[in-house]
Amino acid sequence: MLLRRFYQEELAQAGYLVGCQATGEALIVDPNRDIDQYIQAAQKEGLRITAVTETHIHADFVSGARELAARTAAKLYLSDAGPAEWKYSYAAEAGAILLRDGDHFMVGNVRIEAIHTPGHTPEHLSFLVTDTAGADRPMGVFTGDFIFVGDVGRPDLLERAAGVAGTMEPGAHDLYRSLQRFKELPDYLQIWPGHGAGSACGRALGAVPQSTLGYEKLFNWAFGYTDEQAFVHAVLEGQPEPPPYFAQMKRINKHGPAPRPQELLRQLSLQDLEHGRAGELLLIDARSADGYAAGHIPGTLNLPAGSTFLTWAGWLLPYDRPLTLIVEQSRLPELRDLLALIGLDQVVGYWEPAILEAWQSQGHKLARFDRRSARDLQTQAAERGMAILDVRTPAEYAAGHIPGALNIPLNQLQSRVREIPRDQPLLVYCQSGARSPIAASLLTGQGWEVVEMRAGFAGWQSAGLPCER
Amino acid sequence: MLLRRFYQEELAQAGYLVGCQATGEALIVDPNRDIDQYIQAAQKEGLRITAVTETHIHADFVSGARELAARTAAKLYLSDAGPAEWKYSYAAEAGAILLRDGDHFMVGNVRIEAIHTPGHTPEHLSFLVTDTAGADRPMGVFTGDFIFVGDVGRPDLLERAAGVAGTMEPGAHDLYRSLQRFKELPDYLQIWPGHGAGSACGRALGAVPQSTLGYEKLFNWAFGYTDEQAFVHAVLEGQPEPPPYFAQMKRINKHGPAPRPQELLRQLSLQDLEHGRAGELLLIDARSADGYAAGHIPGTLNLPAGSTFLTWAGWLLPYDRPLTLIVEQSRLPELRDLLALIGLDQVVGYWEPAILEAWQSQGHKLARFDRRSARDLQTQAAERGMAILDVRTPAEYAAGHIPGALNIPLNQLQSRVREIPRDQPLLVYCQSGARSPIAASLLTGQGWEVVEMRAGFAGWQSAGLPCER
Amino acid sequence: MLLRRFYQEELAQAGYLVGCQATGEALIVDPNRDIDQYIQAAQKEGLRITAVTETHIHADFVSGARELAARTAAKLYLSDAGPAEWKYSYAAEAGAILLRDGDHFMVGNVRIEAIHTPGHTPEHLSFLVTDTAGADRPMGVFTGDFIFVGDVGRPDLLERAAGVAGTMEPGAHDLYRSLQRFKELPDYLQIWPGHGAGSACGRALGAVPQSTLGYEKLFNWAFGYTDEQAFVHAVLEGQPEPPPYFAQMKRINKHGPAPRPQELLRQLSLQDLEHGRAGELLLIDARSADGYAAGHIPGTLNLPAGSTFLTWAGWLLPYDRPLTLIVEQSRLPELRDLLALIGLDQVVGYWEPAILEAWQSQGHKLARFDRRSARDLQTQAAERGMAILDVRTPAEYAAGHIPGALNIPLNQLQSRVREIPRDQPLLVYCQSGARSPIAASLLTGQGWEVVEMRAGFAGWQSAGLPCER
Amino acid sequence: MLLRRFYQEELAQAGYLVGCQATGEALIVDPNRDIDQYIQAAQKEGLRITAVTETHIHADFVSGARELAARTAAKLYLSDAGPAEWKYSYAAEAGAILLRDGDHFMVGNVRIEAIHTPGHTPEHLSFLVTDTAGADRPMGVFTGDFIFVGDVGRPDLLERAAGVAGTMEPGAHDLYRSLQRFKELPDYLQIWPGHGAGSACGRALGAVPQSTLGYEKLFNWAFGYTDEQAFVHAVLEGQPEPPPYFAQMKRINKHGPAPRPQELLRQLSLQDLEHGRAGELLLIDARSADGYAAGHIPGTLNLPAGSTFLTWAGWLLPYDRPLTLIVEQSRLPELRDLLALIGLDQVVGYWEPAILEAWQSQGHKLARFDRRSARDLQTQAAERGMAILDVRTPAEYAAGHIPGALNIPLNQLQSRVREIPRDQPLLVYCQSGARSPIAASLLTGQGWEVVEMRAGFAGWQSAGLPCER
Repeated sequence: MLLRRFYQEELAQAGYLVGCQATGEALIVDPNRDIDQYIQAAQKEGLRITAVTETHIHADFVSGARELAARTAAKLYLSDAGPAEWKYSYAAEAGAILLRDGDHFMVGNVRIEAIHTPGHTPEHLSFLVTDTAGADRPMGVFTGDFIFVGDVGRPDLLERAAGVAGTMEPGAHDLYRSLQRFKELPDYLQIWPGHGAGSACGRALGAVPQSTLGYEKLFNWAFGYTDEQAFVHAVLEGQPEPPPYFAQMKRINKHGPAPRPQELLRQLSLQDLEHGRAGELLLIDARSADGYAAGHIPGTLNLPAGSTFLTWAGWLLPYDRPLTLIVEQSRLPELRDLLALIGLDQVVGYWEPAILEAWQSQGHKLARFDRRSARDLQTQAAERGMAILDVRTPAEYAAGHIPGALNIPLNQLQSRVREIPRDQPLLVYCQSGARSPIAASLLTGQGWEVVEMRAGFAGWQSAGLPCER
Repeated sequence: MLLRRFYQEELAQAGYLVGCQATGEALIVDPNRDIDQYIQAAQKEGLRITAVTETHIHADFVSGARELAARTAAKLYLSDAGPAEWKYSYAAEAGAILLRDGDHFMVGNVRIEAIHTPGHTPEHLSFLVTDTAGADRPMGVFTGDFIFVGDVGRPDLLERAAGVAGTMEPGAHDLYRSLQRFKELPDYLQIWPGHGAGSACGRALGAVPQSTLGYEKLFNWAFGYTDEQAFVHAVLEGQPEPPPYFAQMKRINKHGPAPRPQELLRQLSLQDLEHGRAGELLLIDARSADGYAAGHIPGTLNLPAGSTFLTWAGWLLPYDRPLTLIVEQSRLPELRDLLALIGLDQVVGYWEPAILEAWQSQGHKLARFDRRSARDLQTQAAERGMAILDVRTPAEYAAGHIPGALNIPLNQLQSRVREIPRDQPLLVYCQSGARSPIAASLLTGQGWEVVEMRAGFAGWQSAGLPCER
Repeated sequence: MLLRRFYQEELAQAGYLVGCQATGEALIVDPNRDIDQYIQAAQKEGLRITAVTETHIHADFVSGARELAARTAAKLYLSDAGPAEWKYSYAAEAGAILLRDGDHFMVGNVRIEAIHTPGHTPEHLSFLVTDTAGADRPMGVFTGDFIFVGDVGRPDLLERAAGVAGTMEPGAHDLYRSLQRFKELPDYLQIWPGHGAGSACGRALGAVPQSTLGYEKLFNWAFGYTDEQAFVHAVLEGQPEPPPYFAQMKRINKHGPAPRPQELLRQLSLQDLEHGRAGELLLIDARSADGYAAGHIPGTLNLPAGSTFLTWAGWLLPYDRPLTLIVEQSRLPELRDLLALIGLDQVVGYWEPAILEAWQSQGHKLARFDRRSARDLQTQAAERGMAILDVRTPAEYAAGHIPGALNIPLNQLQSRVREIPRDQPLLVYCQSGARSPIAASLLTGQGWEVVEMRAGFAGWQSAGLPCER
Repeated sequence: MLLRRFYQEELAQAGYLVGCQATGEALIVDPNRDIDQYIQAAQKEGLRITAVTETHIHADFVSGARELAARTAAKLYLSDAGPAEWKYSYAAEAGAILLRDGDHFMVGNVRIEAIHTPGHTPEHLSFLVTDTAGADRPMGVFTGDFIFVGDVGRPDLLERAAGVAGTMEPGAHDLYRSLQRFKELPDYLQIWPGHGAGSACGRALGAVPQSTLGYEKLFNWAFGYTDEQAFVHAVLEGQPEPPPYFAQMKRINKHGPAPRPQELLRQLSLQDLEHGRAGELLLIDARSADGYAAGHIPGTLNLPAGSTFLTWAGWLLPYDRPLTLIVEQSRLPELRDLLALIGLDQVVGYWEPAILEAWQSQGHKLARFDRRSARDLQTQAAERGMAILDVRTPAEYAAGHIPGALNIPLNQLQSRVREIPRDQPLLVYCQSGARSPIAASLLTGQGWEVVEMRAGFAGWQSAGLPCER
C-alpha cells in the first residue's frame, strides 16, 4: 500500500492518494479542483486512478471529485447516508456508486470501508483503510471534517453559512454520537483529517498533519465530554462567522461542480492517446530524430522541435484535422506559436514524452527504426538487398544520388507510397538528415522495415562513396 | 524617429516598428500573427501603435495586420494598387485606408510614402520613409519582398503556389520595371527588406540584415540586367518548389485572417482598462499593500497576492461579474488557480503592474492613501480630528479597540458604507494590517481621505497606547 | 506544536521540523545537506531554527546538521551513546551538546527525550516528542533508521559497507533489545522514521510515510520475533549489497561534513543583515521607489531594478566595498550581470524582500518617507516650512527650478551633505522622479525627515506651479 | 557574409558579429563582458569565433575582448595607433596583433581594414568591411564611438572623466580631421556605430540603429561644419557631466580587464571537451539511454537524469576526480544538488547536449550502440554468435538468467573488464533496462560492439524466452 497526502495551504485542505502497487490501482480521497496534481502523482508512482471519493459535501472549496472521475474514467463513490435533502443530486447522472454505513470497496488489495459519521454535515462518511496484503486489521481512517488533530468539524455551517435553519443543534448531537462510536476503535489507528491548522471548518486545529485515535481520545477536547448536552453547548459556542462563499460551495458541490475552464492546450491522457490514434487526431512527435528512431508510438509523425520544425509543418500538415503534440511542456508554447504563424491553429492537446512509458506499461508496443552512418549502410545495403529511397527534390536528385535510388520527394511521399517496394528493407536518405527521419516515421508507420541514413547524401559524399547522376 | 526590426527566425521574416518620439505614435510594417511582440515593444518605448500596414499579401505566413489594427484601434493601411483580382477583399469591412502609388501618410513627424513595386505580387508596395523632424529627404525604404539583400522577390509564387496560371511571366516583367524605377533613387537610402537568408520567397538572400540602395545597385544580380527579356528568363529559372501551404496563406491573407485563438487569460490593454472601469469588470490589484497605497488606479480593489489572498477573495468577490487582475504575469497562474479552487472562474484578463505608468502617461490620475504606524497616528488623529474605523469582527472589537472607533467588519463594509462620516479624514485599522488596506482601497475609491494603520490593533497595543473595551 | 516532514525522493530520506508556535523556536531532525529547505520552511512558518539534531551517523548521505547549526547559530545535539569508537569526532569543535539515553531538551514547549536505540548503528538515538502545552504524554517518536514502516534498519552496514569487521552480529542483538524496549511504549504513538520505500538502509520499507507503534507491534515482522537468536539470523539474511559510497558517508559524517560549496551569490540571513549594516557591506534595496518609500531597512540605498539601475549604480557605487542586494531571486542574475558590465563584481549576497518582515518580527524598525505630488507639496511646503533640495545637475537647475531650492546634484550628495539644513522637513525633487527617491534614501538614512516629490520638476511644471531661473 | 548586432539596452551599446559562412569563421567587434552571448550566437550560426577586436579603449563598460579571445582561442586585434600613452598595456601579454591605419586582416572571405579615426579617443580605429566573395568594394564601416546616427563621439571624456588635462581640445581637432577623411568614402556605405540613443558617449544619438554615410553627410550636424575652429567650439559645448565610473573603465580597459567572476558551474566549450577527454575529467552524459545509445562522445559515462541518477552516481563515481556533465542547463541545478547530497562536490562544468553537433561538425566521431527488444535479440544472438553479459547482482543472476550469460555486476564492471570476451559482439542486459545502458556506455567506450537489451531480463521473461537458473 502507498499513501500520499496533498495539502492545499491557502485552504488548509488535505486530500489523499491510496495506492496498491501490486495491482497499479489508486484511490483519491477529497480531491479539490486542481485535479492535475492527483493525475500526475499517480502517474509518477506508476498507478492508475481507478476510484475517487469524498467524505462529504464540502463547504469551503469546489470539489474535484466529479471531474477527476470523469477525466480518468475512475469509479466515483459518493455518500448515500443521511436525510434525503442532503443527497448528491448529480450522483445518478455521474454514474456514481452510492455508499452507506458499512459498505466497502477494494482498491487493489486495499479495503476501504465507509462509516457514517454525521455531525459536521448529515451525510458525512469516514473511511477505514485496511491493507489486506499485509494485515487483517485497519491501519487508519480518513476522517474528513469529522475529527481533526485536536478538534472536530463544526456542526453549524449548514445553518450559519448555507442558511438551513434548525440544523445546527441536531448536527451537534449527531457529532457527539459519532465520537462515541469512534471510542470503540483501536488506539493505534492513524487519523488522516481533511483539514489542517487555519481552516474555517473548525476552531482550533493543530499544526501536526495527522494524529492517532489513541492520542485524540486522550487530548482532543471533544472526546473529553461525557455529557451530550454539555458537548452540544461547547461545540456551538464561539464559532467564528463563516465566509459568505461557503453557501455557494455547498450548493455547487451538492448539485455537481462544473469542470474547471481548460487551458487552450491541455495535457492529454493515455486514454486520449489510445482513442486518438484510431480517430481524427494527427499525432506529431516533436522529440529528436534519435529519440524518435529509438522508439515511438506507431502512427505518429516525427517533426523534431528545432529550426526546421516550421518548414516541415508547412509542407506536411493538413489544415482540416486536429493536431496533437508529443513534447515537453516547456517547449509547447514555442511550437504552438510557430504553428499559429502559418495558421495551423487546430492544436488541441499534448503529451509529455513520459507518455511513451505509460504506453508501454499498458502492454502497447513501440515502433522503431535504425539510424546508421553512410559507411555502415553501404555494406548492409548490398548484403541485405535493401531498396533505396531518396526523398529529396528532383533537382537535388538530378545533381547526384546513390546508385539505384528511387526518388520520391518528402512532400509527395504520402500520395506516392505505392511506388515503394514492400518486400525488402528500405534505406531512406535525404541531403543532410533532416528530412529522412520524417520519411522514416511515415513509412515505419505503414509497415516498412526502415533504415535511415544519419548524415544524408552529404555524409555519403564526404565518405567518398559512389554516386550517380 | 525610432526604428526597430522584428525578426522571426523560422520564417526568416522581418517586420518593423517606426516611431515618432515627439508625438508618441508608432507604425508597424508587415506584422505577423504574433502581435503581442509589437504591442509590447511599442509600450516599452513609450509609444502607441497608431498605424499598421503591410507591403503585400504575404504567401508564407498569416498576416497580423488586421488583428493588430483591431486590437490597438490603429489605422490600417492596405494596398489598392494592381489589378482588381488582387485587392484585399476585407478592406472595407476592416475600415482600411487604401493606398496607391504616391500616396503618403504621417506617423507623427515621419512621412511614409507608398511606391507601387509590382513583381513579386501585383499589388506590392514599398514604403519610403522620411524623418521630417531632422531631414527633408528620405532615410530608407521598406521593400518587403521586392528587394532583398542580394536578391529580389520571386515573381512565380502566384502561379506556382497559388495556381493562378499565366501570372509568372508578367510578374517578372513588372519586377524588371520596378527595379529600373528604383535606380533613380539615391544611393544612401537604407534598404529594409521583408526577409532574410533562408526564406522561400527568394533564392539567394544574404545574411546581412539590411543594405543600402547604392550597394545593391552595384552588387545585387537583379540590378545587373539591362535587357528585360534576359532578366525575365533569369529570374524565373531555377526557383525551388514552393511549400504547398503558401496557397492557403495567399487566400487567408487576401480575404482577411482570423485572429489567433486566445489564451484563456489574455493581457489587457490600456484601452481595456479605460473601458473596464466604467463597466462590468471588477478590477483587483494584487500588488502589495505598500505598493497599492502609494498609488493605484481608482476603483480597484486591493487583494495582495500571498497567503491571505484566497481568504479575502472568498469574503469579498462576487460570483456573477467578470474579474480582472493587476499582477505580474509570473504570479498569474497561481492566483487564477487559487480563485478556481473556490469556483471564481470568471477571470477574463490581467494587466502587468507597468500598466500604472501607461495609465499616468495618458494623463489619468492615481489614487493613494497613507500608511502610518500606530504612534504616528495617535498624534495625528487628535490633531486632525480624524474619524476612526475598526474593520474587524464584532468579537475582536469587543475584546478591545481604539477609544471612539466605529466598528464595521470588512465583509459588511460595502453595504454599510453610509454609516461612515464623510467630512473628516478617516483612520482605518484591523488586527494585524491584512484587512485594513483592503478597506482603505474600498473607501479611497469612494472619496474618503483615508489613513491606514500599518500594524493594526496589535501594533497599537504593543506600543502601549490606550484601549477601550 | 507544528510538525513538517521533508522527503528527499532519490534517497528516500526523511527529515523533520518540530516547531513551537508559542515561542517561535524550531528543531530540525536529520537534515541532509540541502539545508536551505529547512531555513526557508522555518521562515515561512515564522519560526527560528534554534536546535538541530540527528538520530545517528548516516551512511547514505552527507549530513547537513553541522552546517545548518552553524548557519543558524542553533544548538547542535549529537549522540554520546554507544562505544567510544562511534563518537562524533567533531562534536567538541562544533560546540555540540551531547546526549545519552534519557537526556532531554526543550524546543519551546515541546520536550524532546533521547532514547538510546542501538542496532542499525551503535550510537543510534530515537527522540520521544511531548507537546507539553497540550498534553502530558508523548505524541510520537523520531525513530531514524531504527524502526521503519514495516521494517527495521539493517545492522550490517558498518561491517558490509564501512568494513568494521565483527559489528554486524552484535548490532543485530542490540537491535533485538531495542525493539523489546519499545514494546513497553503506548500503541497510540506516531512513528516518524528516517526513510521510506526504496532506501538501501532497510530491506522492505513500506510506502506509507509514517505509522503508529501499535500497528508496527502487530504487523512489522521484526516485532514478531520472540527468540533473539532467530531474529538475529533473520535480520542478517538476504540484505542486499550496500553501495560503495556508504563507506565515505560514514567517515565524513563521523568526522564532520564540510559545508556545501556555495553559489557565487548566496541568499543571506537575518543575522547577515544585522551584522552587515554595522560593517563593511553596502546594502542596495532594488525594490520600486514606492515600496522603498513605504518602508525600508535604515541605511540601505534605493536603486530600483529597471532601466536606470545601471546608470545610477555607475554614478553612486564604490569599487572597493562588498555589495549586497535586496531583490527577488528571479531578478538577481539580471542585476548582477548589469553590475558586472561596469566592473562592479563585488556582489556577495542578497536577501529576498521578505527579509523586511523578518527584520520587523525581530523588533527592528523600518524607515520610511513620503512621496507626494507637486500640488500636495506646494501647499505643505509653505505650511510646514520645508527646506527644498534640487538634486539635478547645475544645467538642469539653471534652466528652471522651484523658488528657493538648494541645488546639490545627486552624485555630489554624499560629499556635500553638510550644506543641507537639519532643522526642517526636507522636500527633495529631481526632474522626473528617478533620482529623488535615491536622494531620499540617502538622507532618510542620515536622519532627515524627507518628503519626496513623485513626478519631479516635470510634474511641477505641468501643474503650472511657479518656477524660478 | 553574415552580420549580427548585439545591443545592450542599459548601456545603449552595440557590438557586432561578422561571419563568413564559407569558412565558418567569425569576428566579434566591441564585445562587452557578457561574452557568453557572442559564443552562443556564433555556435547557433555554425561559426567559430576566430577573431576579436574593439574600436577603442571604452570608457563606459568593461571590455570583454580580452576574455573572449582567451576563452575562444581567437586572435585579438588591438589598436596601435595614436600616442604612446594610449597604447594597450596588456597587448603583449595577451598576444594581441596590433593594428595601425591601413592594416587589414581577413575573416574567411571578409576583409577588415583599420582606419585610424582619432577624436573620441586618440587610438580610435574604424573598420571598413568588404565581402570579397560577392563584391570588390566595402559594404560598411564599424565606426565605434566616432560616428553615431546623427552625432559624433564626444572628445572631452579623457579630460573630463579620466582627468587627462589638455586632451579635450586636441581631440576635437582630431575629430574634425577624421570626419573630413570620411567625406571621401562612398555614400552607400552602411554605418554601424558603437552606441545608440541614450549613451553618455555622445550628446544626441538617434534611435535608428544604423545609418548610411551618405545620409550622415547630409544630416549629421558634425558633417555640416566646414570651419575647424567653429566645429571644435560646437563639439565641446554643452556636453553633460560624465559619470565618475568612466575613469575606472578607462584604466581597466587599457591595462587589461579581468575576466568576470565565474558561476560555480560554468558552461564548457568544445575545446574544454577536446582537452577534457584526454585528461582528468570524468564526463557524464545525463541524457536518456535512447539518446545516448543513438550517439555519444566516446569515453563518456551515461547516467540518465531521473529517479535512478543518484543511485548509480553513488555506485559508480569516484570522489577524487573532477566531474563534468552533458545536460540541459535547466536540469543542471537538480543534478548538482543530488550529487552534493552524497558529497560529490567536484562538478566543475557542463555542456548543453548541442555540444554533440559541434563535436561532429569538427570532424569528430560519435560512438553508438544498438538497443533491441528481447525477441529481436534472441534471434540475433544465435545468428551472430554474440557473447552475453548479465550486469545484475549475483542474487538476481542466481534467481534466473539467459542461458550462457556471464555475470559481472555493474559495480564490478570496471575492475573485471578483462573477463569479457573481446572477439564477439556483446549482448548486455540487466533486470529492467536501467543498468544495462550504463554498462553499454562503459564497454562501448573500451571498444566492444555492444547490443543492449531494452527491457532487461524482465522483458525477456515476459516474452516467454528460455531461462536458466
